[in-house]
Amino acid sequence: MSRVKIYDTTLRDGMQAEGVSFSLQDKLLIAKRLDQLGVDYIEGGYAASNQKEKAFFEKISEIKLENSKICAFGSTRRADVKVEDDVSINAILSSGASAATIVGKCWDMHVDQVLRCSRQANLDLCADSVRYLKEKGLEVLFDAEHFFDGYKNNPEYALEVLRAAAEAGADALVLCETNGGCLPEEVYEITKTVCYDLAGTEIGIHTHNDSDCAVANSLAAVRAGAREVQGTINGIGERTGNANLCSIIPNLKFKMGHDVLSEEKLSKLTETSLFVFEIANISPVTSLPFVGESAFAHKAGLHVNALRKNKATYEHITPELVGNSRRFLVSELSGMSNVLAKLEKHGQSVDRETAKKILNKVQTLENEGYQFEAADGSFDLLIKRIKGEYTEAFELERFHISVSRDSHGDELCEATIKLSVGGDDEHVVSEGDGPVNAMDKALRKSLERFYPQLKDMHLIDYKVRVVNAKAATAAKVRVIIESRDLDSVWGTVGVSENVVNASWIALKDSIEYKLLKDNALKK
Amino acid sequence: MSRVKIYDTTLRDGMQAEGVSFSLQDKLLIAKRLDQLGVDYIEGGYAASNQKEKAFFEKISEIKLENSKICAFGSTRRADVKVEDDVSINAILSSGASAATIVGKCWDMHVDQVLRCSRQANLDLCADSVRYLKEKGLEVLFDAEHFFDGYKNNPEYALEVLRAAAEAGADALVLCETNGGCLPEEVYEITKTVCYDLAGTEIGIHTHNDSDCAVANSLAAVRAGAREVQGTINGIGERTGNANLCSIIPNLKFKMGHDVLSEEKLSKLTETSLFVFEIANISPVTSLPFVGESAFAHKAGLHVNALRKNKATYEHITPELVGNSRRFLVSELSGMSNVLAKLEKHGQSVDRETAKKILNKVQTLENEGYQFEAADGSFDLLIKRIKGEYTEAFELERFHISVSRDSHGDELCEATIKLSVGGDDEHVVSEGDGPVNAMDKALRKSLERFYPQLKDMHLIDYKVRVVNAKAATAAKVRVIIESRDLDSVWGTVGVSENVVNASWIALKDSIEYKLLKDNALKK
Repeated sequence: MSRVKIYDTTLRDGMQAEGVSFSLQDKLLIAKRLDQLGVDYIEGGYAASNQKEKAFFEKISEIKLENSKICAFGSTRRADVKVEDDVSINAILSSGASAATIVGKCWDMHVDQVLRCSRQANLDLCADSVRYLKEKGLEVLFDAEHFFDGYKNNPEYALEVLRAAAEAGADALVLCETNGGCLPEEVYEITKTVCYDLAGTEIGIHTHNDSDCAVANSLAAVRAGAREVQGTINGIGERTGNANLCSIIPNLKFKMGHDVLSEEKLSKLTETSLFVFEIANISPVTSLPFVGESAFAHKAGLHVNALRKNKATYEHITPELVGNSRRFLVSELSGMSNVLAKLEKHGQSVDRETAKKILNKVQTLENEGYQFEAADGSFDLLIKRIKGEYTEAFELERFHISVSRDSHGDELCEATIKLSVGGDDEHVVSEGDGPVNAMDKALRKSLERFYPQLKDMHLIDYKVRVVNAKAATAAKVRVIIESRDLDSVWGTVGVSENVVNASWIALKDSIEYKLLKDNALKK
Repeated sequence: MSRVKIYDTTLRDGMQAEGVSFSLQDKLLIAKRLDQLGVDYIEGGYAASNQKEKAFFEKISEIKLENSKICAFGSTRRADVKVEDDVSINAILSSGASAATIVGKCWDMHVDQVLRCSRQANLDLCADSVRYLKEKGLEVLFDAEHFFDGYKNNPEYALEVLRAAAEAGADALVLCETNGGCLPEEVYEITKTVCYDLAGTEIGIHTHNDSDCAVANSLAAVRAGAREVQGTINGIGERTGNANLCSIIPNLKFKMGHDVLSEEKLSKLTETSLFVFEIANISPVTSLPFVGESAFAHKAGLHVNALRKNKATYEHITPELVGNSRRFLVSELSGMSNVLAKLEKHGQSVDRETAKKILNKVQTLENEGYQFEAADGSFDLLIKRIKGEYTEAFELERFHISVSRDSHGDELCEATIKLSVGGDDEHVVSEGDGPVNAMDKALRKSLERFYPQLKDMHLIDYKVRVVNAKAATAAKVRVIIESRDLDSVWGTVGVSENVVNASWIALKDSIEYKLLKDNALKK
């Protein structure tokens, strides 16, 4: 049961995935989830890259993390610059992170053709960079870029680079399979040699999925002695992606018997996976091992029948171990266990009959394209509405939105809303930067008289996803709105063929939830 | 360079994937593509399953295949029935296929709890079934279900089942990793033992991806001596899917040096992958190794810079070997090298000054929230506009969109558009399911008189993302629209604080690009 550390690079290498771009707020939310999941390291970003990365390190240092250490990523110093003058190295220091991950070149071809410096100069700049950061008191992880390709081309030089970093005091040497083209037995053999040659220094592994073997390659390295694994949630990353931590962690724990996350933390794996998909605005890959919606979904009649007799007949692990659940594909929707688990998570105890009603409602809504994973506010309201414990804070009479644009590009956007609050009618009009903004402003204008606490509430994110892409602009869209007040953050969801209407539904819920929450606090 | 046979089960095991269902016509089309790709075996279906499967075997026997042999799949005989009276066995015979794949149980737990017959009875029914089909002149492949789990539980019994099938004359014994939970080193060790114990009979491997190791497990079995690999195109299949032949074949050929498909045939791999996604009605997984749209897409500026010096710096194989191609993504994380590489790729040669203008424009737009990596159409238009080579196909005078909803939830959505095409004014109105749909309809209504080819063009996807989440509903949104006509697919992008306006920009570009493309073809 030897310990293997988990190093997450979703926020840095994951963001290299095509179409993925995290805002500062996204990055902070993901970091908190990773900390809750219990990974050992969170790589926050390329410190020297831009203002957003800088702001992340500032903000995250104000948050107390329970389990994870934040790492700042950067290059080793440039060949023609002193280490104390190097932009990347200085950006790491000023990030305030207590751990640094610096990448150095190990493939002689890259040194000759890309860096274009002498091989000795490369050894020097690697050693300098490590030594300098160690002197400044940081934990230093050395990412040995292209280590395996380098080793295959010139084993002696690749090992020399590692030795230079180790002798300069690196706390860990991470072997990077940068191009992702290796197969497991190569990774095993080479890692074994390194563990022997550099005994005493912790060895890590960082792989990519270009040969469709990123997970197997990571496990092979651990089998050979590596004790730290780098990867991303859902394996997002450049090209074919990074090694998927959602597969690696349960394999290390349940198949190989290593000491990684606790069982209680591992049961958050599926929700973490969904959360990252949602924030990255990527449709979840349902066939993902362990955490995918289909990972324990049984379709073949023979299999379902055998499973009734013994779960082990067609399942490699118990789905609940990773927070997932078994599904029989009679219906394609959430099952009772799913809903019960959700209720439990929300601290709601209901009788069997109410649970059934909730299940029916959730299934109907899921059929229409709703998804509650990132919309805890709407889910809470749904339960209250079904239990009859909730009176709406206001009723819509009518809204009308108008958007126009002329040949000069001048735009006008106006929303009129008529609603009633406990019998009182309100009829207001507001302009806005877009239909949803105009609607939001009009709604606040009409409600703040009754509910002054709405002034503390802000919308912080707004996401739209087409649910059935085939029908193009006539398809349904799902809008997810994230809101916050002084002490919490919540999500709400709306679905419609009309983006304005879907936004209205999510917007209404966001306000209803704020008022519900405040009332609950008062009691 | 030993020969490894490829056995495709997309039409049988692949169809167990959640949401996948092939019509008879679909199956025939896929079978033809598989034959063109050059796989050795095509498993046509579970012969006894239903009329559709029966019809497939009839129809396919009328088509002359160049490279592949059709297999009929079925169970070994039932424990309480004579082989000549067994429904499944007889269905195989009447399918007319010259090869049969029959599945038998190897895990003692399954024999005891699911089959509920004696272990000897199971050995007998496996042997009977093989012997009978061999007597009828068929090539017989024995699928040893749950072989690895069975072996781990009771190695002697699992091997006995194989021996029974081999002695009855099976042409190949296929070790099935049915639950997908094994790791590569287990598969290697167990397969090696089998190859030794049953030397003289061909050994095959069939894996599932539950541990995210299906590809590595298949390769491990080949390394241990297996010479036939079963899998599906794109790895589609029940739960987490089957082993992905699109990854296995190039790994066997380029990494392990086995004799599989010819180079010429392998260059059809990417189109075969896309074809199966299309027929299965699944959105292509862009991160798929080897064949995915992102498999050779480079985003990090440092990587792009290095690649221009030497392609091997960040690529494990040449993309054209599998019929794929290299792409450079223009993104927030890149500079001049990405733009130049992209211009090169678009076959656009521009002077240094124009390149600089383009870079400046791209950077300005990126600052506003534009992203061109999924918007090739808009990027092409941008180049043409900067080079002054392009006249807009139409000019907007004015649009006005109106959306309303009353207390009954009744909605109304209407778009009026006034535009001019070469001096002619058009003023139209259209209803729609939402503002964008109404706008799209009105735009087509006004333009199809001038450009009848727009009838062939369809929007296939519509994505919205908030660019600066901090400002919530006043934040900018980025709309990406994917369009297609009879022979290509292109993306366009629009950014605005107003979702309607952003959609308008992307919509206009999608139409402009279609007309630009058609004109270019005419020349």
